Amino acid sequence: MAVKSPEAYRQRAKSMKPRVFMDGKLVEDITAHPVTRTVVEANVASYEWALDPEAGKVLRRPSHLTGEPCNLYTTLNRSPEDLVQRAAAGLYAAANLGTCIYRCVGCDALNTLAATTFEVDRDLGTPYHARFLDFLRYVQDEDLSVAGAMTEPRGPRDQKIGEWKDPDLSLHVVEKNERGIVVNGAKINISGAYACDWTIVMPSGARRPGEEPYSVAFAVPNGAEGMVYVCQYGPHAAERLLADDPWELGNPRFGQRETSLVVFDHVFVPWERVFLCGETKYAGRLVARFAQLHRMVCGGSCKVGFGKVLIGAARLIQEYKGLEHAPHINDQMTEMVTLLETVRACSKAAALEGREEVPGSGVWFPSDLLGNVSKLNVCTAFWRMMALAGDIGGGVVVTMPSLKELKNPETRAYVEKFYGFGSDASAEQIMKVTKLLQHWTAGLHGVGTWHGAGPVQAQKIMVQRLTDYTEMKGLARRMAGIEGEPPQTQETSP
Amino acid sequence: MAVKSPEAYRQRAKSMKPRVFMDGKLVEDITAHPVTRTVVEANVASYEWALDPEAGKVLRRPSHLTGEPCNLYTTLNRSPEDLVQRAAAGLYAAANLGTCIYRCVGCDALNTLAATTFEVDRDLGTPYHARFLDFLRYVQDEDLSVAGAMTEPRGPRDQKIGEWKDPDLSLHVVEKNERGIVVNGAKINISGAYACDWTIVMPSGARRPGEEPYSVAFAVPNGAEGMVYVCQYGPHAAERLLADDPWELGNPRFGQRETSLVVFDHVFVPWERVFLCGETKYAGRLVARFAQLHRMVCGGSCKVGFGKVLIGAARLIQEYKGLEHAPHINDQMTEMVTLLETVRACSKAAALEGREEVPGSGVWFPSDLLGNVSKLNVCTAFWRMMALAGDIGGGVVVTMPSLKELKNPETRAYVEKFYGFGSDASAEQIMKVTKLLQHWTAGLHGVGTWHGAGPVQAQKIMVQRLTDYTEMKGLARRMAGIEGEPPQTQETSP
Amino acid sequence: MAVKSPEAYRQRAKSMKPRVFMDGKLVEDITAHPVTRTVVEANVASYEWALDPEAGKVLRRPSHLTGEPCNLYTTLNRSPEDLVQRAAAGLYAAANLGTCIYRCVGCDALNTLAATTFEVDRDLGTPYHARFLDFLRYVQDEDLSVAGAMTEPRGPRDQKIGEWKDPDLSLHVVEKNERGIVVNGAKINISGAYACDWTIVMPSGARRPGEEPYSVAFAVPNGAEGMVYVCQYGPHAAERLLADDPWELGNPRFGQRETSLVVFDHVFVPWERVFLCGETKYAGRLVARFAQLHRMVCGGSCKVGFGKVLIGAARLIQEYKGLEHAPHINDQMTEMVTLLETVRACSKAAALEGREEVPGSGVWFPSDLLGNVSKLNVCTAFWRMMALAGDIGGGVVVTMPSLKELKNPETRAYVEKFYGFGSDASAEQIMKVTKLLQHWTAGLHGVGTWHGAGPVQAQKIMVQRLTDYTEMKGLARRMAGIEGEPPQTQETSP
Amino acid sequence: MAVKSPEAYRQRAKSMKPRVFMDGKLVEDITAHPVTRTVVEANVASYEWALDPEAGKVLRRPSHLTGEPCNLYTTLNRSPEDLVQRAAAGLYAAANLGTCIYRCVGCDALNTLAATTFEVDRDLGTPYHARFLDFLRYVQDEDLSVAGAMTEPRGPRDQKIGEWKDPDLSLHVVEKNERGIVVNGAKINISGAYACDWTIVMPSGARRPGEEPYSVAFAVPNGAEGMVYVCQYGPHAAERLLADDPWELGNPRFGQRETSLVVFDHVFVPWERVFLCGETKYAGRLVARFAQLHRMVCGGSCKVGFGKVLIGAARLIQEYKGLEHAPHINDQMTEMVTLLETVRACSKAAALEGREEVPGSGVWFPSDLLGNVSKLNVCTAFWRMMALAGDIGGGVVVTMPSLKELKNPETRAYVEKFYGFGSDASAEQIMKVTKLLQHWTAGLHGVGTWHGAGPVQAQKIMVQRLTDYTEMKGLARRMAGIEGEPPQTQETSP
Repeated sequence: MAVKSPEAYRQRAKSMKPRVFMDGKLVEDITAHPVTRTVVEANVASYEWALDPEAGKVLRRPSHLTGEPCNLYTTLNRSPEDLVQRAAAGLYAAANLGTCIYRCVGCDALNTLAATTFEVDRDLGTPYHARFLDFLRYVQDEDLSVAGAMTEPRGPRDQKIGEWKDPDLSLHVVEKNERGIVVNGAKINISGAYACDWTIVMPSGARRPGEEPYSVAFAVPNGAEGMVYVCQYGPHAAERLLADDPWELGNPRFGQRETSLVVFDHVFVPWERVFLCGETKYAGRLVARFAQLHRMVCGGSCKVGFGKVLIGAARLIQEYKGLEHAPHINDQMTEMVTLLETVRACSKAAALEGREEVPGSGVWFPSDLLGNVSKLNVCTAFWRMMALAGDIGGGVVVTMPSLKELKNPETRAYVEKFYGFGSDASAEQIMKVTKLLQHWTAGLHGVGTWHGAGPVQAQKIMVQRLTDYTEMKGLARRMAGIEGEPPQTQETSP
Repeated sequence: MAVKSPEAYRQRAKSMKPRVFMDGKLVEDITAHPVTRTVVEANVASYEWALDPEAGKVLRRPSHLTGEPCNLYTTLNRSPEDLVQRAAAGLYAAANLGTCIYRCVGCDALNTLAATTFEVDRDLGTPYHARFLDFLRYVQDEDLSVAGAMTEPRGPRDQKIGEWKDPDLSLHVVEKNERGIVVNGAKINISGAYACDWTIVMPSGARRPGEEPYSVAFAVPNGAEGMVYVCQYGPHAAERLLADDPWELGNPRFGQRETSLVVFDHVFVPWERVFLCGETKYAGRLVARFAQLHRMVCGGSCKVGFGKVLIGAARLIQEYKGLEHAPHINDQMTEMVTLLETVRACSKAAALEGREEVPGSGVWFPSDLLGNVSKLNVCTAFWRMMALAGDIGGGVVVTMPSLKELKNPETRAYVEKFYGFGSDASAEQIMKVTKLLQHWTAGLHGVGTWHGAGPVQAQKIMVQRLTDYTEMKGLARRMAGIEGEPPQTQETSP
Repeated sequence: MAVKSPEAYRQRAKSMKPRVFMDGKLVEDITAHPVTRTVVEANVASYEWALDPEAGKVLRRPSHLTGEPCNLYTTLNRSPEDLVQRAAAGLYAAANLGTCIYRCVGCDALNTLAATTFEVDRDLGTPYHARFLDFLRYVQDEDLSVAGAMTEPRGPRDQKIGEWKDPDLSLHVVEKNERGIVVNGAKINISGAYACDWTIVMPSGARRPGEEPYSVAFAVPNGAEGMVYVCQYGPHAAERLLADDPWELGNPRFGQRETSLVVFDHVFVPWERVFLCGETKYAGRLVARFAQLHRMVCGGSCKVGFGKVLIGAARLIQEYKGLEHAPHINDQMTEMVTLLETVRACSKAAALEGREEVPGSGVWFPSDLLGNVSKLNVCTAFWRMMALAGDIGGGVVVTMPSLKELKNPETRAYVEKFYGFGSDASAEQIMKVTKLLQHWTAGLHGVGTWHGAGPVQAQKIMVQRLTDYTEMKGLARRMAGIEGEPPQTQETSP
Repeated sequence: MAVKSPEAYRQRAKSMKPRVFMDGKLVEDITAHPVTRTVVEANVASYEWALDPEAGKVLRRPSHLTGEPCNLYTTLNRSPEDLVQRAAAGLYAAANLGTCIYRCVGCDALNTLAATTFEVDRDLGTPYHARFLDFLRYVQDEDLSVAGAMTEPRGPRDQKIGEWKDPDLSLHVVEKNERGIVVNGAKINISGAYACDWTIVMPSGARRPGEEPYSVAFAVPNGAEGMVYVCQYGPHAAERLLADDPWELGNPRFGQRETSLVVFDHVFVPWERVFLCGETKYAGRLVARFAQLHRMVCGGSCKVGFGKVLIGAARLIQEYKGLEHAPHINDQMTEMVTLLETVRACSKAAALEGREEVPGSGVWFPSDLLGNVSKLNVCTAFWRMMALAGDIGGGVVVTMPSLKELKNPETRAYVEKFYGFGSDASAEQIMKVTKLLQHWTAGLHGVGTWHGAGPVQAQKIMVQRLTDYTEMKGLARRMAGIEGEPPQTQETSP
């Protein structure tokens, strides 16, 4: 069976030797370091689920290449129902991890490459699709974890690539030879790559003629020579480093979404792992397809999963405080549920209105319009849920002391007394839930939600592009009784 | 075939003789009066569509009783796909009428009665379901237009029915005899009843023991003895009455949604048309089921149809003014489209997550939670779309002169010059679109959207009732690592 | 005393003979026509207030030319306290009229001309300021009502004036001679001009060299030869025309804000009433100053006055329905009050942070930034208040029958019974308040609020222009500890 | 002169020996510990400002007792102008500290006690006011830093104090003797108390007869016997503890707002520092007055100060990225400025509409209605500003690596290259500003803004209580022409 054990992944992770830096120091062992191990644990969970009788219903499905049951994160979406399952997987993972499932971007990258390599080969007779299918089969057979990388530092937004003073601000090919290519550059904000078996690299935007070196896609194994991972580091990483015991933290096992800058300093990629190389016309399509798929999940069902945890935590606090019947709190709870269900509906409708994107490719993508609409709703909804949960949680959400005080003989009695709020729950229980709320309402998730799957302006532009006003204008004209209008041609907003 | 011609309906309408009053005067002929005839026309359109090759794909489907193709508005929803079609019909009708399709409430009432009479008979051995099926078959065979009536004046909201000084503020049975029942009371805000063949009357809320006379449902033919229709009258009716020609109005053929107070002054109903009479326990269920269905349509897809017209009109104005490339206008257009698609997604997801409501009844209802979520989104979305379109339309939306000026030799040249804005469109075209926008942005639709399918607080209460926090609390507890919590029982917010 | 009696104005109004058209017909007597007389009545009220001991405290103040007590609407703002009084007058008038005080634009135009003619003369040695002061003294001495006119039809927004196919789309000088000038064009959306003694005409925007004929300001008496007023006409006008008795209408005496297209077809203006003619550089300044002042009132305190009526009406309905203690309604009421006070605070702060605009002119203008902020808040606030009041008012707000039914023997008993809602109030009282709410929530006010004092995008552009980020950037740099930044020059956002 | 040097305070701080715990450990020296010293530094700054020629204009004013120039934070507001200055001080402090000015609550507590002790003595002949004035003079003469403490853990919200299982959940008197009182309990979320010379303790809510022991107010010196401070501890504290150099942090000198649980375990207070003891009737008034004042500052101008830093940082990022002319970013900037100015206007208007609260006391309080309106605006505005700035800042705001990487020879070149974004600014500059934005958009400020000066529901209740609908109902009735209404008495919403 192609579904492999968590233990197998864990062993591979132990043997990975990427050059990872955090807070100015080398991370010797990503499975031992308090922060990077959370990424390993999230990946482990994805292997556990696929073997779990219940979770497996969502997280497992057959390979279309071999028919073998695979982890969903290594498979293609080949129908609207597959898309519904893909969205459900995102929801499940988010609700159970409380952070990124780090195989998510990679999975959407696999689908994107499946359609796009098919298209390029069809148009240009290139050999990318067969190569890609080989890679896909390898990933499925070994049940590998695959990260994805798209975003780049880029230069000034009002300049073109060729005008930047440093060409490396976007990843590009600096050498081609018989065996393969050599690339330079960096990918930024990359979730979990240092603990995944492979990383798929995609262009970060549309490319013009003349930008051939920047129009490149490939797969690279963990810690390939020349790769350096410079980790995100901030308050939450510091807190984890200083924790005596992860139970002091809101999400002990999985922590925060951990990203890194992934530097490519003359990294060699053999031709069999190169899936696009110079065909500028297809770079933008590849990016657009990835966004189309990723916005349904990362910009849709994933945040529903997060929202469930956030609402659950707020509800527990409401109960601990004896406020189950306070109308204004119930009104806030209702607003959160409404926001959650709205996003869930958009994401689901996007899946169900999906279509085969490159006809003949067999790969299905969600409705682009609804995926973007979903992400636009997520953006405002998540900030609002954060705010509401932060109101329900109370000032203690940002003023609570360390859970270590519960072990401090000098303060323990006070903390147990005063953070128990006279309820039936213990101070420990209340503080743990409050800590969890802290991470959701006073942490990285607001900004993360804005930018995951692209900034909000990108979605607005897509909605504008995707809207055809012809039918709507026709309805208005007929209703108002306007005669003699010039014949209308298909019109798309610029 | 059970689908009948528009002409057949029009003939029946001409022979109807209901007692209808508007602006203090008797309406002699509802097919001739400038205002009431718009209701007739909307009904006529519903017959036209069912015979139209294109529209018929949405508006026609087979009877489950006879297998004959019927107008959708006379049929039951017997699967999620049927619900999707029901929502699509609402969207189509709204987009093409720009007002109520007056058979809508009746259709949802038929479905509600189908499930509820089945349930009452199953529990109590009553004969309602067979009666109802007879009535349904008659409606289908004759392709009758059926209105529905639920809302009532009611007394003070802080009193129970028995405490009101006037029992008639809610409709109730005042006499029962061998042949049937006699009822007194009134239904308020009733769309189009005076021009429909039949009206289905339902209770307006849950009923307690002791309120048996108020727990009554039945069907009554147009203009039955004792029925008086007191019409809505306001600015738009006045404008229509004063128009020389309907083309002066924004929506010449179908106008505004027209409602009336329907008075029942000792109206007799024979037993074969009585579908509930005294079984208080089922009144609330009937109301809840109706709301469940109606919120998907009236609180969902219908407003998407309206929104399409509104956006189409705004787009035309944008083009007439040469503002297609103004970023701030395109941003507003994009926001409207996003709102529209959000509601459409909620409504569609509600249909697809529907279920058979009384098991064994064969009648399917949409997801109650998503239906309410849809309506909550509609409420804010529609006001926002009104506002945005009102901004795009410009001050002229509320300051434009009469289209009669285009025929006034003294002013015509000025109006043609100054309301043409130097564009390629004529002043007449611009004024007609502006007039259409006036009706959408400075008329009855904001308040109408709030209250159609029930006021917003009703939806909030339903979302609160329908939410089970058990799973969400469990996710939060597991993530935070809380041990030793008491076992959780299924919990529903009060 | 310069404050004159209402009767004196009413006499003048009776003798005015402007060419006014409404709904395709000539209005023979503006004091008798049911719609145009509401404008006369609003003007009458402004004379009544100035003589009223209480209202006079707000509406009366001394002329700076003569020291005589004048109607505030004929005077200049010469200090922050004067600006506070100006804002208070706007609030008072709006709250008591429920529509425009038609002398408002004229008053702000007088102030704008006072500062701008002073500036032009100072710079160019022109004779405008002395002419203007003569006109102002005449207006004050006779206590004349003065309207103002700025907005124009204009041509395509993506073209310059010279590119329009019709030069008349903006008002301009077509002839100059010894006695004066002749102008052609039209002003659009002009409030109440046909019933005011004089109208001040201003340019509608900034002017470039080459657009000298379009850079013109002057005063013109009511109904000057060549002037034609084409009135706004829509549902509310029709309703008033059909009313047996104004008490059927929500605001019997003052009605809706009534505007007209004011056509200038070769209108002669003598030099003594010309206040700008060709000095393109000052046209934009004049417009900006007018906006600066008008946004504080029309975009600020005026809507607070309207809001008070709207909230008062909603509160009455809440009480009639026995809902004084319903938390969700009180929450809505509280939201409305919060919005109202927010706008009031912005408007007041704008007044208090005002400054003398052309130094030496003695005329004070409110803070431009806060005036624009006030208007931006008004726009969203008013739509939200409309929506909330529409929810509280219930579906009846848009479905109520005519008040004529209360005199119809066939329906009167039903209407009294069913629209009394079993409360202590009579159906007549409830229907009158509901009618008033209808006008506020389902009428012209949403769109009117957007566009009065300019569309929202105009305010956004002004906020952008008026913001200097230098101080804020300095705070951020110092806090973050950034050394070696280049020295900052004063920076204004483009 | 009563304004003392920063050095004098710093010396006192060094000699303070409070029992302070953070993260389970005793803080040996609050002036040396990386986290607690930020509180000391913020206090130091308040002494620096009072001596600064520029800042002193805002931060210094004369004592009404001695006429000596004092630090504003030790003085009373005795006129509307004083209130304007009080608001301006809050803005200045917030903009320059980027965190709490820890003398703020104490200052508002002094004003509250001044009015309330005057009132209690006037009514009951108690000796509190003279005691208070002695204390105030001592504070002014020595220029002491004074914290304030109101919020308490409290028991279940659906129970009264007497029903709680632990009486200590609210602070109360457990012993009275000739010398003074002994109190037990705790204050929660208390800003900066461990580094202030004194702390003023106030009741946390209204008190009923029978709750005399809970109706107590007093002043207590830093670290009095029986006081234990259990500090807030979370991600940001951890990050500071692990920093090699504060320049790695967004706000190196002043950090986050630092609070603690302040435990009172049998703390003795001599009578001369007791300002209320058992007079239940005045506890609620005291709390209300404090809120009235504090909402103008903490719920108003203070957040304007924070907002200036946040906008300034966002603007710098916009410029670094070359996005000064991107319309969608400028639109977001404009929205932030509009929100900021709205809050500033509300806060200023609240000051200017202030009044002497207990007549004869000589102490002025801002408009209660406008103060609450200001706070309600702040709550939504601040979350929105956080969201907008988080969008402008980009994903890097939550994914940036440590600034230590700039000193790491292995990664330095990569970080300089890829976080410089090819702009003229250095990576260090960009990362520092980004770090500052991180603290504002992905940190404690959202939740903090909700709860500072009380949760949002408290403000809503106050707006409801403070609104008198009588005038507004009267306006509506008169306008609608309702005759024969019963005479209205003054009405206040329940």
